[in-house]
Amino acid sequence: MSGIAERLTAAIGEEQVVTDPQVMEGYSHDEAEWAPYGRPAAVVRPRDTADVSATVALCAELGVPVVARGAGTGLSGAANAVDGWVVVSFERMNRVLEVDPVQQTATVQPGVVNDDLRERVARDGLWYPPDPASAPWSTIGGNVATNAGGLCCVKYGVTRDYVLGMEAVMGSGEVVRLGRVTAKGVTGYDLCGLMVGSEGTLGMVTEVTLRMRPLRTGAEHTVVGYFDSLTDAGRAVAAVSAAGVVPSAMELIDRFCLQAVDAWKNMGLSAEGEVLLLARSDQPGAAGEEEAERILSCFRDEGAVYAVRSTDQEEAEALFEARRLAYPALERLGPLLTEDMCVPKAKLPEMLERIEAAAERFDTRIGNIAHAGDGNLHPLFIVPAGDEAAKKRAQEAFEVIVDEALALGGTVTGEHGVGLLKMRGAAREMGPDVVRMHHAVKNALDPRGIFNPGKVFA
Amino acid sequence: MSGIAERLTAAIGEEQVVTDPQVMEGYSHDEAEWAPYGRPAAVVRPRDTADVSATVALCAELGVPVVARGAGTGLSGAANAVDGWVVVSFERMNRVLEVDPVQQTATVQPGVVNDDLRERVARDGLWYPPDPASAPWSTIGGNVATNAGGLCCVKYGVTRDYVLGMEAVMGSGEVVRLGRVTAKGVTGYDLCGLMVGSEGTLGMVTEVTLRMRPLRTGAEHTVVGYFDSLTDAGRAVAAVSAAGVVPSAMELIDRFCLQAVDAWKNMGLSAEGEVLLLARSDQPGAAGEEEAERILSCFRDEGAVYAVRSTDQEEAEALFEARRLAYPALERLGPLLTEDMCVPKAKLPEMLERIEAAAERFDTRIGNIAHAGDGNLHPLFIVPAGDEAAKKRAQEAFEVIVDEALALGGTVTGEHGVGLLKMRGAAREMGPDVVRMHHAVKNALDPRGIFNPGKVFA
Repeated sequence: MSGIAERLTAAIGEEQVVTDPQVMEGYSHDEAEWAPYGRPAAVVRPRDTADVSATVALCAELGVPVVARGAGTGLSGAANAVDGWVVVSFERMNRVLEVDPVQQTATVQPGVVNDDLRERVARDGLWYPPDPASAPWSTIGGNVATNAGGLCCVKYGVTRDYVLGMEAVMGSGEVVRLGRVTAKGVTGYDLCGLMVGSEGTLGMVTEVTLRMRPLRTGAEHTVVGYFDSLTDAGRAVAAVSAAGVVPSAMELIDRFCLQAVDAWKNMGLSAEGEVLLLARSDQPGAAGEEEAERILSCFRDEGAVYAVRSTDQEEAEALFEARRLAYPALERLGPLLTEDMCVPKAKLPEMLERIEAAAERFDTRIGNIAHAGDGNLHPLFIVPAGDEAAKKRAQEAFEVIVDEALALGGTVTGEHGVGLLKMRGAAREMGPDVVRMHHAVKNALDPRGIFNPGKVFA
Repeated sequence: MSGIAERLTAAIGEEQVVTDPQVMEGYSHDEAEWAPYGRPAAVVRPRDTADVSATVALCAELGVPVVARGAGTGLSGAANAVDGWVVVSFERMNRVLEVDPVQQTATVQPGVVNDDLRERVARDGLWYPPDPASAPWSTIGGNVATNAGGLCCVKYGVTRDYVLGMEAVMGSGEVVRLGRVTAKGVTGYDLCGLMVGSEGTLGMVTEVTLRMRPLRTGAEHTVVGYFDSLTDAGRAVAAVSAAGVVPSAMELIDRFCLQAVDAWKNMGLSAEGEVLLLARSDQPGAAGEEEAERILSCFRDEGAVYAVRSTDQEEAEALFEARRLAYPALERLGPLLTEDMCVPKAKLPEMLERIEAAAERFDTRIGNIAHAGDGNLHPLFIVPAGDEAAKKRAQEAFEVIVDEALALGGTVTGEHGVGLLKMRGAAREMGPDVVRMHHAVKNALDPRGIFNPGKVFA
């Protein structure tokens, strides 16, 4: 047992410290298959904030880096361990501490699973919108660390829009409260918002107060549109936005991904064209029907080969389920590399064209899913297992696409985070002055440099 | 002419530098009448980012503090000058640079007036929600500096929710781009969000890209309720929230403020009770009528002495106009001190009770207006001009109310900012560890300490 593991055991108890190498392997990386990771010195599974504080204080004293993890569903390597680090897994801090129907908030521990929270607050007539495709497994702590998005961001925003306040453990193990529980507040800097999306590089979140919305009760109207090409579909998305419509979801999935899901789950999905757009309206009553009609018109005007308002709720659900299952379905086909750039909506057709061009140029198979209504694209690079040349070509295509997104005024990561996989692109996007500001803030809040160093920015 | 004024004139031209003491007086403070201010060494009125950058670089070189100002409508003294400082007024950088109807964004200079922006983007079918009562005069730059709120925050959020990206001048005069223009993005720390609400203590914002919403087209339904007491009205607000209704506005105004507006503007307002609640629903079609009915039920259930759905659009507008005019109407009566705390909605009745108790205990006249739906209260302390004893009593009541808000889990400032007037309360709210974090971040991003030092935190 390493020195740090012994000290941790003495400080917070044997039960909380894992050192078995085989068990630790499962805690040492997230789902970014292409990102490197190492062997941690210990995995801590804290019971409470005091355990986290003691762990951080010890790591600070010994200068040992520490990385937090939720369910490990991340897609950019932010939760990956490096040799000799301490991993803190929040799996046991998974309680919903309070639900307040008047204030419309919930206070939770970071290990609560996203879908579990949604289910719990629904009992009090509340709704937690951020719904990453990983919602059945991913935790609120992980969602906060990457500022996770999902299907309903296009209308309801991302995780940061819902984090009102938090308890966090900072660089010497001190426990602080950031943000607030009230609807509004501007006392001091928005350090709470700064923690959101910081990918574990500034501190560890041990409790979160989240804003909720009233539960939606009416039926959603689904519009289904098939297109002959990615660019046609991209134009349809831009047209919906230009028409002043804000759908409650606007997803894109191509035939390749649809078929991969169907081959896995036998859902009986049929592709009526190369690309499927799935849109929804949750406006109440007649307004929802009108909005759905407007979306349908945009789809038809932009050359949909088949477009309808779905009257079959089950079929509509199956198509959205297919969208959510696209990533794991493609993962079954071989090592998978995921893109996550976000471009201005008007640039969506052009970006999709450039993705296709890169796939051709680098002879790489790219499947496409997208939170199209946000301009947030997830090209998925699939490589035959063991084919190193194909892997290298895919990586080249990946980097070219990152640069194309920047050239179109986009960002390299819409919702997955920079982690390890997007560091080059992120540095280009931010530029040297802003990277310097990052170092300054990091040094200010984590003076010993123990929180997940070497991630996000070099 | 002081040394810094001469250097500024040489660097950016005489036209841009004001040194006339009488002219400078008008630039040396905001509308927080009770906050101290001094005589600046110069007022700079930059034409562009280059002028701002040159000014900041010079101030950094000479170690002269610099404070930014928009229209000077702030209510906590954040924009106040100190003897020898340089004031930068953004009045000439007031252009809307781009409106993008597809992306639903607008890119503006900081000196654009809030209402002017709203009018301009309406031409492209867009809507900019944040609407502080100062909207006819206050600028986007000032709104960003204080994370301004307004009437529609209760449903549509505050300024920070609309700031996607910005250009800013940092501590050595370097010009950086923070944030993004895309709908989503999580590249690096949210330094853009950190700048919002930082009250000019971290840098100067020279351009902002704001998210817009599609213009609302349907009619709003207004519900008017009069109550016999502040606490009855507070209970009604909590009841609406508990019913899962999110109105598009929910304002409180007491008889004293209503009468002050009427005495000034002769609007023919009649008060049917001690306290007026004004609520709105902007849900489309029948859903809006249903929502208005639910609000009305809550008002009646909580003991409204008179409550109706207003059918007279003009009368409804006049009542909202009275709400917006309450502050200037009371300003006419004598030196005015404004509170701005925000409490959890369930605590609203109790907070209103404690405000009344403080008014009685300190023999102070307190008028009440509130963004009640957010739990954001604006008690207004009115003192006869020249009555120093009354002023002292009002200040004591002010501080007691700050502490009461904290005791109820609230924050000392919902939307006005800490500035000079809320520093004691803010320090109590944040606690020493979080104040230390503020110093660390301030030192990291403004190492020479030139941006509005001594404001917000000591």
